[in-house]
Amino acid sequence: MKISELGGEFKLIERLTRKSDDPNIIVDVGDDAAVIRMGEKYLLLTTDMLCEGDHFSLDYFTPRQIGIKAMVSNQSDIAAMGGTPLYALVSLALTENTNVETIEGIYEGMYFACREYGGSIIGGDTTHSNQVIISLTLIGEVERSRLVTRAGAKPGDLIYVSGQLGGSTAGLNLHRQDIKGFDRVKLMHTEPFPRFDISAQVSASATAMEDVSDGLASEIRNICEASKTGALIYADKVPIEAEVSDAAAKLGQSALDYALYGGEDFELVYTVPPNLKGKVPGYLVGEITKKKGIILIEGEARSQLTRFGYDHFRE
Amino acid sequence: MKISELGGEFKLIERLTRKSDDPNIIVDVGDDAAVIRMGEKYLLLTTDMLCEGDHFSLDYFTPRQIGIKAMVSNQSDIAAMGGTPLYALVSLALTENTNVETIEGIYEGMYFACREYGGSIIGGDTTHSNQVIISLTLIGEVERSRLVTRAGAKPGDLIYVSGQLGGSTAGLNLHRQDIKGFDRVKLMHTEPFPRFDISAQVSASATAMEDVSDGLASEIRNICEASKTGALIYADKVPIEAEVSDAAAKLGQSALDYALYGGEDFELVYTVPPNLKGKVPGYLVGEITKKKGIILIEGEARSQLTRFGYDHFRE
Repeated sequence: MKISELGGEFKLIERLTRKSDDPNIIVDVGDDAAVIRMGEKYLLLTTDMLCEGDHFSLDYFTPRQIGIKAMVSNQSDIAAMGGTPLYALVSLALTENTNVETIEGIYEGMYFACREYGGSIIGGDTTHSNQVIISLTLIGEVERSRLVTRAGAKPGDLIYVSGQLGGSTAGLNLHRQDIKGFDRVKLMHTEPFPRFDISAQVSASATAMEDVSDGLASEIRNICEASKTGALIYADKVPIEAEVSDAAAKLGQSALDYALYGGEDFELVYTVPPNLKGKVPGYLVGEITKKKGIILIEGEARSQLTRFGYDHFRE
Repeated sequence: MKISELGGEFKLIERLTRKSDDPNIIVDVGDDAAVIRMGEKYLLLTTDMLCEGDHFSLDYFTPRQIGIKAMVSNQSDIAAMGGTPLYALVSLALTENTNVETIEGIYEGMYFACREYGGSIIGGDTTHSNQVIISLTLIGEVERSRLVTRAGAKPGDLIYVSGQLGGSTAGLNLHRQDIKGFDRVKLMHTEPFPRFDISAQVSASATAMEDVSDGLASEIRNICEASKTGALIYADKVPIEAEVSDAAAKLGQSALDYALYGGEDFELVYTVPPNLKGKVPGYLVGEITKKKGIILIEGEARSQLTRFGYDHFRE
């Protein structure tokens, strides 16, 4: 049976996962990072694999940007749990023809992201492959009182996002179609940054949190599934920069679609109790409901979402 | 510049590595696992990436064996530091055509190795690629008094190995050349196991330790480089099973070469002070010398080794 016949990668992960009975495992498969009790604190563990062609292209990424993106995509997972990054392990699969300068550039980018946002590279593995693949594991820590998982949103909670969405997908499409200009939008795809600033401000009060790696709709669905709730999304309030809207128009596509179903924006989406309305940073984009299902409200129209983020084995 | 022009992957790693000033990092790049101070104990972190074609072949590995080997190669690194495995993160790159049954088999093997030798799978990542790649990160722990690194061997120390060598390379070559029979030797390649039994017995007294993932000569050189010593290897005492010698003869190659320059045997090599002669398990295969260089003693002949283990970008 092919993965597509099974229903995609999320079905696959469900099928493969077995629960451990180790009492120190607080959160395992299914959140931004795994959480382990370790003394007074919690240890956070996350890993991301980036493949040439699927996650980056040497055609429009500099090696340094590839390194930045690899590290940031993991740092963002640590931010989404309320934590701080500590230690990274980097595995690289390289071809005979990969240039040493390219690899040095990738490391340059990873070291830059560590200096800027935290963490030290302490080990890894180098091996041969038919394409360039970066597998990065990041260990972080979080005070117990500041841990925020996907599960914990309550009906009535407000949904916020930390910043503008859709830019990464717009940037990717601009690059792929080789459209001139929109340099700042292109950088949203090639040089993302993690929102530790926002995480630090909201982690003590947020009831659920995630980073936007697979589109806002998908992340809100994840929170709802883990929290056993539904949600309303106010389409008109989803923050999208004018330049991103312009880029989408130029591409003949919808910036709102990019925000909802694109991904890799690495902003945070978090839920807070209704009494914190206006008291947390970010943009109010929806609310948690008791009734299951994700409803998108666009002007007068209400529609139940059935389409979510990117699946490597479905589209 | 190509990696081969630079001089191979070890030169590359040297060039990429920068030291962190985090005082909690006890050991970083260059040992079997990184070591981090974490409360009363040390945390061990190791990662290995296995690529289809380079590290395994679906032609002669069952999916379950691939999973076993992926987990064991990491568990063996934890054993080599004197530790016990705790938590694993598994990243898989899969193709559109990878069968769900294959992936389930790989996981079956990883869960088996966790049950047998310790550790829980707590997370990971799944993505698309042109070939099957498994990247596994394993976290372990070790009592401070039981940590054994590569650095610590002293002139006069005796070098032991925990078991028979060369079997994995013999098994690989038997498979590659499609030679019938020698089933037990073939299993040495496809179903290795980590030596936690030996690690537990020697970790309190060993002055240096490593697992034999790149051949005995290479591992002894690593210990000598880290410990700033040289070594003698007694070729005649390197333990090699009769069946492995028979397989090598059938292949027209030398079993001693397999043991010295092959790899993936996942036995442990460790040094102990001379007063422990005969008091530790395993096979005495050499001694540490003050004079730099690795000398192989075969009968009356002494030769300085200049060839070491496998480099993905040199051979």
